[in-house]
Amino acid sequence: MKTTAVIMAGGRGERFWPKSRNSRPKQFLSLTKDGETMIQKTVKRLLPLVDMEDIFVVTNSAYTGLVCDQLPGIPKENILAEPCARNTAPCIAFASAIIQKKYGDAVMLVLPSDHLIGYEDLYINTLKKAISVGLEGENLATIGITPDYPETGYGYINFGSETSAVESDAYKVERFVEKPDLETAKEYLASGKYLWNSGMFVWKASSILANLERFMPDIYEGALKIGASYGTESFNETLVKEFTAFRSESVDFGIMEKADNIYTIPGSFGWDDVGNWLAVERINETDSDNNYIEGNVISIGTQRATVCGGKRLVAVVGVEDIIIVDTDDAVLICSKNNTQDVKKVIAQLNQQGCTDLV
Amino acid sequence: MKTTAVIMAGGRGERFWPKSRNSRPKQFLSLTKDGETMIQKTVKRLLPLVDMEDIFVVTNSAYTGLVCDQLPGIPKENILAEPCARNTAPCIAFASAIIQKKYGDAVMLVLPSDHLIGYEDLYINTLKKAISVGLEGENLATIGITPDYPETGYGYINFGSETSAVESDAYKVERFVEKPDLETAKEYLASGKYLWNSGMFVWKASSILANLERFMPDIYEGALKIGASYGTESFNETLVKEFTAFRSESVDFGIMEKADNIYTIPGSFGWDDVGNWLAVERINETDSDNNYIEGNVISIGTQRATVCGGKRLVAVVGVEDIIIVDTDDAVLICSKNNTQDVKKVIAQLNQQGCTDLV
Repeated sequence: MKTTAVIMAGGRGERFWPKSRNSRPKQFLSLTKDGETMIQKTVKRLLPLVDMEDIFVVTNSAYTGLVCDQLPGIPKENILAEPCARNTAPCIAFASAIIQKKYGDAVMLVLPSDHLIGYEDLYINTLKKAISVGLEGENLATIGITPDYPETGYGYINFGSETSAVESDAYKVERFVEKPDLETAKEYLASGKYLWNSGMFVWKASSILANLERFMPDIYEGALKIGASYGTESFNETLVKEFTAFRSESVDFGIMEKADNIYTIPGSFGWDDVGNWLAVERINETDSDNNYIEGNVISIGTQRATVCGGKRLVAVVGVEDIIIVDTDDAVLICSKNNTQDVKKVIAQLNQQGCTDLV
Repeated sequence: MKTTAVIMAGGRGERFWPKSRNSRPKQFLSLTKDGETMIQKTVKRLLPLVDMEDIFVVTNSAYTGLVCDQLPGIPKENILAEPCARNTAPCIAFASAIIQKKYGDAVMLVLPSDHLIGYEDLYINTLKKAISVGLEGENLATIGITPDYPETGYGYINFGSETSAVESDAYKVERFVEKPDLETAKEYLASGKYLWNSGMFVWKASSILANLERFMPDIYEGALKIGASYGTESFNETLVKEFTAFRSESVDFGIMEKADNIYTIPGSFGWDDVGNWLAVERINETDSDNNYIEGNVISIGTQRATVCGGKRLVAVVGVEDIIIVDTDDAVLICSKNNTQDVKKVIAQLNQQGCTDLV
């Protein structure tokens, strides 16, 4: 059976403002010195496993131009343009229906577009295990990341002792849990039975569609209509009509927390969700003062700083534990302890009607 | 006898980079919200005491255009353009010779162009006392600032008990001392006999010229030649020839540390030398989080910060004790503890040949 990939690339990525904007969210940015964007890396690392022509990108219709520019090898008809944002369940239903229409059935690797992987061979190996699990019956496989520390910003996957019949490294999922508090996260780690929910899924199109029919029948019906019109003149009309009618729902809440036959494959391959500006020093090399500095920057006596220079000179003197990001029309100076407050800047800009800066 | 003022405006003011540049030093900047530049304020506060036509500005020839623009009321012939920088002794000799030529003799208030005064009435009152002292014999009067704290960045004036015959608030100067270490500065304050050297002097042209003749005869001779040519066709030629031949010397070292009949008038009129970016929060009102913020700035959870925005948006999140200055081609982010290192940025720019940014 054909192996396809569905790259989910509709996100906004406010936490990388001012580099990320409504018009260019995180997955279309390069946050590493090699200049490759997040989505380019996502596609490139899949190529040992999936042919370019079998890679689908689901994104907002506003970003199809960016996808075309950054991924010229992806066939145009594989760029699935959502007319509006409806979270992951409608996104996956849309892609599943298209893949069913195009291939009859196929394995789908459903993957975020804006994560980084340090050890790509280990990643591919983990995906292969997930594929063998996903090929069996109506199994839904998900990659769980072996935690390094009690992170409170991720959801967790609680797994049991039972393993898949076809793959001894795949464990039956007991439940999905939301972001825990620190105490709970510590208990999760101590138990040895919890993994980080990476948002990576592997299943057959027929399996996820069967589960959609069972748990989200309205979205299933709409997705089938979209799939039926794929390749016809009425496709865009059908897509807009059906997709905009979908309710916003995550696949975790809509399907994964309810379905049977869910297996998780624990992975440890240098995964980083690159969640905010703090990630940049993790995913890049730093200097002897623990600074990550790129671009037009003069740094004097600075420590543990992340400085992304733009066209103008950025002079940084004697500061510590700070993030500085320069762009043509805005510069951010943010304490490392307050990266979550970057979204407050965006809220204020929206409030002030400065939408060109958002 | 006519009272004149000589505003010394040749300085570079590197410590206000990136707002100050070689092409626009500190005295030509506004560092207060009212938009007035330092030199405009300097002239304006003198007007109760000195007629506009009796105010002279000595500056580098590169800045005469700035002086004309910012002080249109000053007669063009009162803008004395130094062909090169030679410190305060040649500057004062030049101005004294011109004033002697123009007025025969006159009182000269010799003043920096880049200081701020909070209590202008008290300032004028102090200057009046200095004038009465300077009118007597060959007295050289200097304004000493009553210290608030043991500052180690200023020179000090040590005065004795003897007062001037004409003014009981003017004390005979014992000696001028260089910038002390903290221990010494504390001793100075405890003694009650030391004032900050403000670099403000009051004397007759004839008095300072007599002292120049005695202690710096070469500069005296050159200055007389410049004075003699003032108003003639050969003025510029004489000025360039004589002035460039002067050695660089401060009036403190060249005259004040050697001359007799020096009196200091203690002043307390909210003087601020506006020595570096730390001054901006002192000379402006701050908000309830002790921030001074001007321009295009969004601030979230920021404390004790000085943020001077430019054309672009500056977003400041969660930072403390920091100075941020945005300009069109450079932005400075500097810890309040490291303002002295701004000059290292300039040194590095010069080294890299980025002279357009200096």
